[in-house]
Amino acid sequence: MRPNEGRSPLLTDLYQLTMMQAYFDGRMFEPAVFEFFVRKLPEGRNFLIAAGLEQVLDFLEGLRFAPEELDWLSGTGRFSPAFIEWLAKLRFTGEVDAMPEGTVFFPDEPILRVVAPLPLAQLVESRIINLLQFQTLVASKAVRSVLAAEGRLLVDFGMRRSHGAEAGLLSARASYLAGFAGSATVLAGMRWGVPLYGTMAHSFIQAHDNEVVAFEHFARSQPQANTMLIDTYDTEAAAEKLVGLAHRLAKEGIEIQAVRLDSGDLGEHARKVRAILDAGGLQRMRIFASGNLDEYRLRELVAAGAPIDGFGVGTRMNTSADHPYFDCAYKLQEYAGEARRKRSEGKATWPGRKQVWRHYDDVGRIVGDTLTTLDDDGIGTALLEPVMRDGRRLAPSPALDAVRERVAAQLDTLPEPLRRLEPAAASVPVTVSPVLQALAEAVDRHPH
Amino acid sequence: MRPNEGRSPLLTDLYQLTMMQAYFDGRMFEPAVFEFFVRKLPEGRNFLIAAGLEQVLDFLEGLRFAPEELDWLSGTGRFSPAFIEWLAKLRFTGEVDAMPEGTVFFPDEPILRVVAPLPLAQLVESRIINLLQFQTLVASKAVRSVLAAEGRLLVDFGMRRSHGAEAGLLSARASYLAGFAGSATVLAGMRWGVPLYGTMAHSFIQAHDNEVVAFEHFARSQPQANTMLIDTYDTEAAAEKLVGLAHRLAKEGIEIQAVRLDSGDLGEHARKVRAILDAGGLQRMRIFASGNLDEYRLRELVAAGAPIDGFGVGTRMNTSADHPYFDCAYKLQEYAGEARRKRSEGKATWPGRKQVWRHYDDVGRIVGDTLTTLDDDGIGTALLEPVMRDGRRLAPSPALDAVRERVAAQLDTLPEPLRRLEPAAASVPVTVSPVLQALAEAVDRHPH
Repeated sequence: MRPNEGRSPLLTDLYQLTMMQAYFDGRMFEPAVFEFFVRKLPEGRNFLIAAGLEQVLDFLEGLRFAPEELDWLSGTGRFSPAFIEWLAKLRFTGEVDAMPEGTVFFPDEPILRVVAPLPLAQLVESRIINLLQFQTLVASKAVRSVLAAEGRLLVDFGMRRSHGAEAGLLSARASYLAGFAGSATVLAGMRWGVPLYGTMAHSFIQAHDNEVVAFEHFARSQPQANTMLIDTYDTEAAAEKLVGLAHRLAKEGIEIQAVRLDSGDLGEHARKVRAILDAGGLQRMRIFASGNLDEYRLRELVAAGAPIDGFGVGTRMNTSADHPYFDCAYKLQEYAGEARRKRSEGKATWPGRKQVWRHYDDVGRIVGDTLTTLDDDGIGTALLEPVMRDGRRLAPSPALDAVRERVAAQLDTLPEPLRRLEPAAASVPVTVSPVLQALAEAVDRHPH
Repeated sequence: MRPNEGRSPLLTDLYQLTMMQAYFDGRMFEPAVFEFFVRKLPEGRNFLIAAGLEQVLDFLEGLRFAPEELDWLSGTGRFSPAFIEWLAKLRFTGEVDAMPEGTVFFPDEPILRVVAPLPLAQLVESRIINLLQFQTLVASKAVRSVLAAEGRLLVDFGMRRSHGAEAGLLSARASYLAGFAGSATVLAGMRWGVPLYGTMAHSFIQAHDNEVVAFEHFARSQPQANTMLIDTYDTEAAAEKLVGLAHRLAKEGIEIQAVRLDSGDLGEHARKVRAILDAGGLQRMRIFASGNLDEYRLRELVAAGAPIDGFGVGTRMNTSADHPYFDCAYKLQEYAGEARRKRSEGKATWPGRKQVWRHYDDVGRIVGDTLTTLDDDGIGTALLEPVMRDGRRLAPSPALDAVRERVAAQLDTLPEPLRRLEPAAASVPVTVSPVLQALAEAVDRHPH
């Protein structure tokens, strides 16, 4: 791959550019209001966690067409020279309001609003959805493992089976903000300071003549941080061998910190291995497990009391395997001061610029949200905040650890049934205010 | 996102680097042989299509650590200065053999083999899996829509709900090579010449005072290529309005080429709209449909005789939604001239350097494959070919259109039951040769 594809304004759909050409021809540069929202919860889910705003703002601030991109567009014959010239000078000059990353949200609630000249707001649709959906998807999936693990260490192991480079990298970020302890993905450590964890691969064991030689070699090379993979041939036999080695190395001040199980019945192996390690005087050595894990498997292992201290959760989390996409959209809600909505079957939207107000009970649990127009009075806490004006961030983005703390605090606001893995009998009510309902009816009376 | 994440050697798992440090400490630089394979077919699938080799070769040829990456690694305190110095000079110097992109393959068959000094072959594991799995996943999913569509036009519409930038871009490539006519993703057109298709969005209609004004505006701006989206308010009413407009514009030499349906019962709307267009004398105007499509829905629409000329297939294809990952691996099969295998429960591998031989019947249909060691005699067609020596490609990569033609030819070699969407009663037999079985037994006799 050549560099910088994530920044290219050509990472968009062709129709954005052909519509822009038409808007340009018709001088349709009035402000347009688009909002991003999820239409409905994936089956079995109780809430979602907003994530990805940081990357959207980076994208908007850096938006520009490179000379070779303009040349290529010109060569397609689809666009006028005047339009290409205009693109050359195009920068994102609009406004963004959004829910802070880490906010709990529900269907129909906008988590991001863009106000910009119509062609500009249109151009950025494809990449905004691409960025916002994916991190929201992963954060919303990963947080379920966080709830199921009941405080045990969780590490993102899934870069290799993520969908490409950016998915691998951003899923490390999204799972960390959701409450994972860290990731195996090195670049996420360099880029955002995500704490890094690692063990060893089967190939390391296989490349040595026998397991004990491999374990000793690794411990001497990484005396500060080492986790031995013990399932390459026979898990319990490897644990037995490790006891002798650990005592031998301890005399030199080298401690083997943990073992990893990666196949078979993880709970059963963990019990046997714990017994072997304890009998060998290695009560401090921790047990880490991985292999096809997700929130359901974690809950089973935790409920069964498996003596596992930490989990590597990979593929199913990074790809949100049970629901690898959302029914989500970025829709035009207002143009040139007039509210708009589409009425396509099953896909109608609420028109106008909106705010989401959240209401809490006496102990700080969410009792409901109200969706209303931006100029309507609301009570409770307004969830969308101004984050960008004139194409510039209003403030530096929060540190990733602050987002992670926000998620933890937001989880405390969830009614207990919504924190469970099963669908809650009653969801949080999202009420559409009378003012917004009246606006939708007024828009519908407009002839087309 | 900063540029170039897909090229960074730090887009890897931490354990690759800590294992490398140990290999470096122990001077374990002998040749290692790793092979990538899929362990089993996703439920309901009959075959897979190899894809992504091109990007793997790009990655290997470009592999190097940037000074800021080395500084950062150094600052973690996990690595020795001598190791960091060695990394600074590291280039990929190994060999790659692989099935050409577009080859049909089955479980346990290696589609790529890397032979390189152990630390180097280890380092590239994470990104090789990340690249090979994803395009193979998308190509293997997309080809099912190609089979179901029976020649109708298919366009990739799914960049926005792909998992990040690279997934959006590479899924355009993978679906095109699988037989799609093209993509909406502009950057895929610039990068690989993937043909681009586009229509218009609901926002375009909504931004105008009424639909006819919007249609006319678009047709005048894009007289050569225009498809009108007609489901924003009322599909059949829009089709009626379009008839008058089309005749009016025809007098000026502007032809409206097609309409798009995007909601409701697509087959039913298509029949009604076809009747309206035909009654209005617009027999040449084509009907294009989109919205939550996959191979099963395509087959239903085709079987029902819906008058739809082309389909936009998005999210479910780009994310391979029913199976968003493979059970796949890149495993050490030989080190320093000795065959190796892991025996972890449910994850045992076949040791050594292997070749896949394919056998055909008299009419060119596959009757079975044989998996054997590289030095064993084989009959039939050998599927893995040398593609890289000393870290350099042996030949320029085939053009994407050549890969696309290969897929079409490969589909012709599939026994009829394997071309259906349902699981075939009998799969293609993959036989493990006696020589390979004997090698596995010999490796198992080795003590650990």
